[in-house]
Amino acid sequence: MGVVVQTIERAKDSVIERLAACGVATVHEAQGRTGLLASHMRPIYCGARIAGSAVTISAPPGDNWMIHVAIEQLQAGDILLLAPTSPCEDGYFGDLLATSAMARGCKGLVIDAGVRDVADLTQMRFPVWSKAIFAQGTVKETLGSVNVPVVCAGASVNPGDVIVADDDGVCVVRREAAGEIADKAEARVAAEDEKRTRMAAGELGLDIYKMRERLAAKGLKYI
Amino acid sequence: MGVVVQTIERAKDSVIERLAACGVATVHEAQGRTGLLASHMRPIYCGARIAGSAVTISAPPGDNWMIHVAIEQLQAGDILLLAPTSPCEDGYFGDLLATSAMARGCKGLVIDAGVRDVADLTQMRFPVWSKAIFAQGTVKETLGSVNVPVVCAGASVNPGDVIVADDDGVCVVRREAAGEIADKAEARVAAEDEKRTRMAAGELGLDIYKMRERLAAKGLKYI
Amino acid sequence: MGVVVQTIERAKDSVIERLAACGVATVHEAQGRTGLLASHMRPIYCGARIAGSAVTISAPPGDNWMIHVAIEQLQAGDILLLAPTSPCEDGYFGDLLATSAMARGCKGLVIDAGVRDVADLTQMRFPVWSKAIFAQGTVKETLGSVNVPVVCAGASVNPGDVIVADDDGVCVVRREAAGEIADKAEARVAAEDEKRTRMAAGELGLDIYKMRERLAAKGLKYI
Amino acid sequence: MGVVVQTIERAKDSVIERLAACGVATVHEAQGRTGLLASHMRPIYCGARIAGSAVTISAPPGDNWMIHVAIEQLQAGDILLLAPTSPCEDGYFGDLLATSAMARGCKGLVIDAGVRDVADLTQMRFPVWSKAIFAQGTVKETLGSVNVPVVCAGASVNPGDVIVADDDGVCVVRREAAGEIADKAEARVAAEDEKRTRMAAGELGLDIYKMRERLAAKGLKYI
Amino acid sequence: MGVVVQTIERAKDSVIERLAACGVATVHEAQGRTGLLASHMRPIYCGARIAGSAVTISAPPGDNWMIHVAIEQLQAGDILLLAPTSPCEDGYFGDLLATSAMARGCKGLVIDAGVRDVADLTQMRFPVWSKAIFAQGTVKETLGSVNVPVVCAGASVNPGDVIVADDDGVCVVRREAAGEIADKAEARVAAEDEKRTRMAAGELGLDIYKMRERLAAKGLKYI
Amino acid sequence: MGVVVQTIERAKDSVIERLAACGVATVHEAQGRTGLLASHMRPIYCGARIAGSAVTISAPPGDNWMIHVAIEQLQAGDILLLAPTSPCEDGYFGDLLATSAMARGCKGLVIDAGVRDVADLTQMRFPVWSKAIFAQGTVKETLGSVNVPVVCAGASVNPGDVIVADDDGVCVVRREAAGEIADKAEARVAAEDEKRTRMAAGELGLDIYKMRERLAAKGLKYI
Repeated sequence: MGVVVQTIERAKDSVIERLAACGVATVHEAQGRTGLLASHMRPIYCGARIAGSAVTISAPPGDNWMIHVAIEQLQAGDILLLAPTSPCEDGYFGDLLATSAMARGCKGLVIDAGVRDVADLTQMRFPVWSKAIFAQGTVKETLGSVNVPVVCAGASVNPGDVIVADDDGVCVVRREAAGEIADKAEARVAAEDEKRTRMAAGELGLDIYKMRERLAAKGLKYI
Repeated sequence: MGVVVQTIERAKDSVIERLAACGVATVHEAQGRTGLLASHMRPIYCGARIAGSAVTISAPPGDNWMIHVAIEQLQAGDILLLAPTSPCEDGYFGDLLATSAMARGCKGLVIDAGVRDVADLTQMRFPVWSKAIFAQGTVKETLGSVNVPVVCAGASVNPGDVIVADDDGVCVVRREAAGEIADKAEARVAAEDEKRTRMAAGELGLDIYKMRERLAAKGLKYI
Repeated sequence: MGVVVQTIERAKDSVIERLAACGVATVHEAQGRTGLLASHMRPIYCGARIAGSAVTISAPPGDNWMIHVAIEQLQAGDILLLAPTSPCEDGYFGDLLATSAMARGCKGLVIDAGVRDVADLTQMRFPVWSKAIFAQGTVKETLGSVNVPVVCAGASVNPGDVIVADDDGVCVVRREAAGEIADKAEARVAAEDEKRTRMAAGELGLDIYKMRERLAAKGLKYI
Repeated sequence: MGVVVQTIERAKDSVIERLAACGVATVHEAQGRTGLLASHMRPIYCGARIAGSAVTISAPPGDNWMIHVAIEQLQAGDILLLAPTSPCEDGYFGDLLATSAMARGCKGLVIDAGVRDVADLTQMRFPVWSKAIFAQGTVKETLGSVNVPVVCAGASVNPGDVIVADDDGVCVVRREAAGEIADKAEARVAAEDEKRTRMAAGELGLDIYKMRERLAAKGLKYI
Repeated sequence: MGVVVQTIERAKDSVIERLAACGVATVHEAQGRTGLLASHMRPIYCGARIAGSAVTISAPPGDNWMIHVAIEQLQAGDILLLAPTSPCEDGYFGDLLATSAMARGCKGLVIDAGVRDVADLTQMRFPVWSKAIFAQGTVKETLGSVNVPVVCAGASVNPGDVIVADDDGVCVVRREAAGEIADKAEARVAAEDEKRTRMAAGELGLDIYKMRERLAAKGLKYI
Repeated sequence: MGVVVQTIERAKDSVIERLAACGVATVHEAQGRTGLLASHMRPIYCGARIAGSAVTISAPPGDNWMIHVAIEQLQAGDILLLAPTSPCEDGYFGDLLATSAMARGCKGLVIDAGVRDVADLTQMRFPVWSKAIFAQGTVKETLGSVNVPVVCAGASVNPGDVIVADDDGVCVVRREAAGEIADKAEARVAAEDEKRTRMAAGELGLDIYKMRERLAAKGLKYI
């Protein structure tokens, strides 16, 4: 506790953009169905789809002091990600902090706790994925850390990892693997496009994926 | 487990349309306050109001194989309804399956588990009522059954029962009773229209329903 | 139980309007971070921001009789607030009751239970903050009370207290303190406006609030 | 609503005893992994293991009137099973009702709601599986039904079905299938006894169940 | 925030003892089914039954500083009652604080948050009713208040109110009404004793409470 | 997925024993209030206090195949720790697997899912900390991994890390730091012993920790 790591490595912007374009569900599949944050992480408004490098925050329950510290560490394109040290749904973040973060080029916030001023944040188009919307205020008394590894909503996140977030939730991609995962995700998108066309034409998944034989072997009975 | 019932009876289209027009709350009242699925079943977008015949799926946790099997059993106007065999919020269903289901005329999905690709599903106007929005992928390893009786979100559903779903949630109507319930529901709508007019004019429910005497008899005190 | 208090004091309209303009998060801060209802109290649609005098209802689980009684006690500008006597998510309130309440000038409903007909309520622009959206019907068999002190979603509310509600949730302000809290809330808004301008220009909270020294004293280490 | 079925069929006592001896987990497996009530159904004390014929109760939230009605329908060896018509955790049942039920030979209570007087019930050795322990009192105002089919904690139960309950939870067995399931459950117990002996001696499940080849075929890698 | 009220009034010891003897369920009924804390407040071990005067604590999430302050305010026979200012399950209290509280004659703790060292507390026979058992540590940085009115687990509690707690949960009795409620509770106990004898002899509640006529009038049908 | 790491490093037995003796709350404090698993991880019976090296399992929801694989990797003194790849409360583990694990010297199980046969496990004194007690059976169809890093109940765990578990819950200690943490934990125990003696004698924490001055500086008011 009480540490701010000022230099972190980030993935390339071009890779990050490719991951954003693929979206959470596809990226999650592309990396072997790993990296998802828990389903309680919901966007405050629909339609945002972002990716960026994680500036991580470990903060005590009900204390948002470290967000001010973290904002100074932001580079354009980063995403703030906050994990409280014990379960909390207080409103750590509102429109003032969003104004400050946006001034540094921050793309959004992922927080396993609460957020407030959501009407303003929506109007500002500053996207947030959170556990709760709750106006409950916080204090500035106890240190936490910035840019250390955290567990956020059940997922392990290292500073500089790529965060992908959209209406389906939030996924983390290890920085080192980001390029490879982008390749795999784009391959999935291409494969899905072909299947989508066939399915739209009425062809069944049972036939496209050749499932009938395996289902019969397992013992499926049609009556 | 491992059974697909290929022939089910369905209610008449005209009856189904009348139930859809009445909506969940009215239909639920019309059948004696029964048939509601649990309140955690929420629509992925607002404004959809549908009714259709249930093609039921009993599926293991984290395994969406049976959805492919069920899609082949769909007729135009049907609604897919999936109950996992133990609690699960994985994302069994996304835009590819929706494309396939829509190609068969499916009106929507009711799933006591998770769904993903909700931005795409919203754009496609394929309505889903689910327990969670979660990108978590599933496998295709274990058999379930299609068109067998299930308990879904606390309600007992038989294949071919009429599912009514709107922003208030989801209600099931026994196929055999659908016509009778449609009659009762429409009668309620008519009765409510009259009351709505009187209430909008400022008349009180206390007087419209003649409650004052019974309240006094129970001992209500005005001070 | 079984009491209806017919005369309650209310805060001045002008004060109530000022509180509405400040919004939930600011009002909550202005009164020392107190008065918030629990985060499970969510609006049925986004964008409403209201304040009004509480007409309180204490009602048994699954019994909405007292809402009819309470509607007669409404004055223009009031907000209905219902606390069940034990946890319940049944749909106590729908479009008919909303029609009746609107005819009396009611601004909205806060209910630590369920609501239904939410598509209609949304179209009518009758805002509701509730624990659940649930079509489950209720009975009219057991007395409760109107305009008595209640605990609603974890907050103590007296009849005539000012309820402020927006997308961030719901906050209660003691009637006697409403003017003073409005003053403090407006002062906060003014102070925040100035900080917002500075933050939008890139200045950091660390500097605006002069936090660096205190962080260092606590032992924060930059590495 | 408002119906009491006075004559129900029951399984044979000898079959019921055999199911009790096998326990919940084994019986559930023996009937193809079906019939379990949700995991929130917990015993008020450890160590009870019972089976009996279900006398079912469908009751409104917060109203225990129908329990009095149901007690008259009890035969020696029966189990009361209550499903509220909407979610509720009020304390429907306490030591007085237990005294009455025990006087009729009732073996226990399964209730998807609350129970109270648990210290007394424990001393009386009247086992209860419930969703909550909650002293909240109930009223006697609204009818429900006795000995009708219900959905209780996610499981469909018909009157006369066999309820098996122990520290692992609660399982329902269709009355018609009780004998067959008892046979299968006892066969499982016998098979498990043999495996237990081998495992206690250090033999691995990998070998007993010959899993190594299938694991390798699936691609499991040892490193 | 930041206030310690040093002088509070307490109910008479003899009254408190009578309430303890009646227990939570009876006391709750005796005061018109009011005063219960939420069902998530569970004892760390079974069998404790206490009553005492509330020394209340309002504390920030994750900060147990005020417990030290409150212990100095304890008199023999008091019960500590802590309500966090926002939802929290951190372990505010352990065996050291219990040792200190016991040295002042404290009878137990009621906390709408977490507790730890429960094995030690059980051995010391220091009863605790809490929302969670959680070892998570707390800090001592932010002020709260002692002996101010609080809402704890959904119930409004004033300092000096009588807290009754047993295996059924926790109930609060207003200090001013304690004597009257003790009278009513004891009357209930006496009345229940008589009914218990009759029920144990096989008489039915239907007859003891003369329910048959009213059930028939409501329309109950025996078939 | 699909990997079994056969060689992991473990902490020294003597260090592990020292951590067990200190218990979860103390160890958690000794490592800077980190390493706790979520509070939903509860023991199936009271009084167990263990520590051991983690043999980790990442398993799909509803599939316990990998437990068989993991048991072969156990050494005497190890603890099995299972994290499902998505939320699940199925009963992955029962008395047969416990028999097998005990035959290999396993000290207990930590599982962020369900367990069954708890009456048997209690009699065998095989301790389990789990999210649920649930008889729901699992399949053996899909690979997972053994001895890979996992996130279990919100805590990051590497194979070979020391798991400490008692009635307060579960804590993980990094293998590399185990000796240092044992030193710190024992120092805390010693310091607490001295304070316990003083507190038992009636001395206040306010004085022992010299808090009065700092409380006054923060503005605490006694009235």
